[in-house]
Amino acid sequence: MPFKSLDELRAACRDLSPGNETAAAAVAARQDTLTKPQGSLGRLEAIAAWLARWQGRAMPRLDRVKIVVFAGNHGVTAQGVSAFPAEVTVQMVANFSHGGAAVNQLARVAGAELDVIPLDLDRPTGDFTRDAAMDETAFLAAVSAGYGAVDGSLDLVCLGEMGIGNTTPAAALSAALLGGGAEKWTGRGTGVDDEGLKRKVAAIEAGLKRHAAALADPLAAAAALGGRELAAILGATLAARHSNVPVLLDGFVSTAAAAPLARLHPAGLAHALAGHVSAEAGHRRLLAALELAPLLDLGMRLGEGSGAAVAVNIVRAALECHAGMASFAEAGVSEK
Amino acid sequence: MPFKSLDELRAACRDLSPGNETAAAAVAARQDTLTKPQGSLGRLEAIAAWLARWQGRAMPRLDRVKIVVFAGNHGVTAQGVSAFPAEVTVQMVANFSHGGAAVNQLARVAGAELDVIPLDLDRPTGDFTRDAAMDETAFLAAVSAGYGAVDGSLDLVCLGEMGIGNTTPAAALSAALLGGGAEKWTGRGTGVDDEGLKRKVAAIEAGLKRHAAALADPLAAAAALGGRELAAILGATLAARHSNVPVLLDGFVSTAAAAPLARLHPAGLAHALAGHVSAEAGHRRLLAALELAPLLDLGMRLGEGSGAAVAVNIVRAALECHAGMASFAEAGVSEK
Repeated sequence: MPFKSLDELRAACRDLSPGNETAAAAVAARQDTLTKPQGSLGRLEAIAAWLARWQGRAMPRLDRVKIVVFAGNHGVTAQGVSAFPAEVTVQMVANFSHGGAAVNQLARVAGAELDVIPLDLDRPTGDFTRDAAMDETAFLAAVSAGYGAVDGSLDLVCLGEMGIGNTTPAAALSAALLGGGAEKWTGRGTGVDDEGLKRKVAAIEAGLKRHAAALADPLAAAAALGGRELAAILGATLAARHSNVPVLLDGFVSTAAAAPLARLHPAGLAHALAGHVSAEAGHRRLLAALELAPLLDLGMRLGEGSGAAVAVNIVRAALECHAGMASFAEAGVSEK
Repeated sequence: MPFKSLDELRAACRDLSPGNETAAAAVAARQDTLTKPQGSLGRLEAIAAWLARWQGRAMPRLDRVKIVVFAGNHGVTAQGVSAFPAEVTVQMVANFSHGGAAVNQLARVAGAELDVIPLDLDRPTGDFTRDAAMDETAFLAAVSAGYGAVDGSLDLVCLGEMGIGNTTPAAALSAALLGGGAEKWTGRGTGVDDEGLKRKVAAIEAGLKRHAAALADPLAAAAALGGRELAAILGATLAARHSNVPVLLDGFVSTAAAAPLARLHPAGLAHALAGHVSAEAGHRRLLAALELAPLLDLGMRLGEGSGAAVAVNIVRAALECHAGMASFAEAGVSEK
């Protein structure tokens, strides 16, 4: 286990490189020679430079793209916060392994490998309205599992999750990190009804109150209110930064999971793009707070890494234009 | 040439099927059985139903996707409306044929064929500040060229364009069809400076004034103010509707080109999606007026079909989820 204490993890979260400025500048310079009006590929141009900065290569590559889906179970489901029963987490992990879920199809379209990593599904986290979701040991174990899931052989990683009930810890963690109270961050998740939404807000309020003493520390908040799959996404996002792998975050849960890194370092999520903005109520607000501009806005709210997976081909488009286009000189095209 | 008069073309634009409701309903019904909360794939679910409706197949396919780029030259460039010289149109057509342009790379990422169709590049249209851009014969020839470029063997077609100066006819045609005056629709195109922008607005105002008598008829307006590549996109959009091929429109020029169809029939563009919203000033307004919600908003403004090309993989994602996902029953996943 790479992290033996919250202090050690906190130090790692603050030990972040600014990326390779030279590689990013080389991409920007090349972009201006290509056969198009300057800037006319919009965000595709910025994405090519972003890939270069975080891969540390003036000519980035996307040979190995992986979607990692972490799965966890949540004690807080006892509070009636989800429209689906908790057993669905295990059932969906089986569905992933048989190729029947949305993300299986989307990984194929994205040209991406898919890893599904179940985290102690038979041991749900504590119900945070009563106890900490995880003690320090359990939290560090989940962070470490995520950290170990990403290494420098990847060119891009998409981070997704599956866990019945997990928009509740995501909303609680968002409220803890960014303030504003439970209602601001709480949505219907997989489709809870009005009564369920009330129970969800009440559970989050109870959790924020019970763990108030821990919330000033982003990592302690993530342990008290989060979940194993959220902790693993935090670890994976950190590992990606340490090993030069750009990240596509997925929806509300994925973004909330990575948010502690942005609280611990002002550029903690600079190597991450938001693949999309979810229809889940809090996500747009969370992205705005983190200054992440989503690549897609398609009303998706499935999780599983699905929105990030759809965004992979936008990143591929950016790279292919950068790598494959002719310059004005090469093509004999007149400039302005 | 399929259309021998404006009246014949107008009649064809009003003879449009409503699509296959049975196929669309079958897709919607199947979507609700798949292993995801209902509606959680957002627009991907609607896109699958849209494909079914306009292909007329309950299980749509995307085996043959084609990007068609029509190129034309514009007499109105004499008014100094573009940042680039008119010779660039021909040079870029050569660049397309050598594989060096953005759309070449994007077609590869999209898994799409690419056709580039130059339209009388050595005979620019008339300068619409003085004459009609095209007489009826020239206009019908260009519409017919576009009509002939799309047939029912395609599963999806992206319609793009190349033509130095062509955001000027696009803005003029938008103003003619939707009102609001030249400034409302005029942007910087490939990057014209402040003086050029003034010249552009003045040219459009002059054109609207000179051809005022023709503007009540969408087709006469397209002939007087448009361009060959715009007319061809109109013809291609119509052919797609007549031969069950869904359409992805590209940016401002592509959308303005197809807009006469929406003026001639209330559901004239129902078989078309906007691949993206361009950074060109008038496009967002034009899409709103036509009730087209763009799939992407990436600040692109290149034309060439580039934004539509990037959107193809969103359509593929929609189809693959629809076709490949397991149902709750098949996967043994519990429902609500």
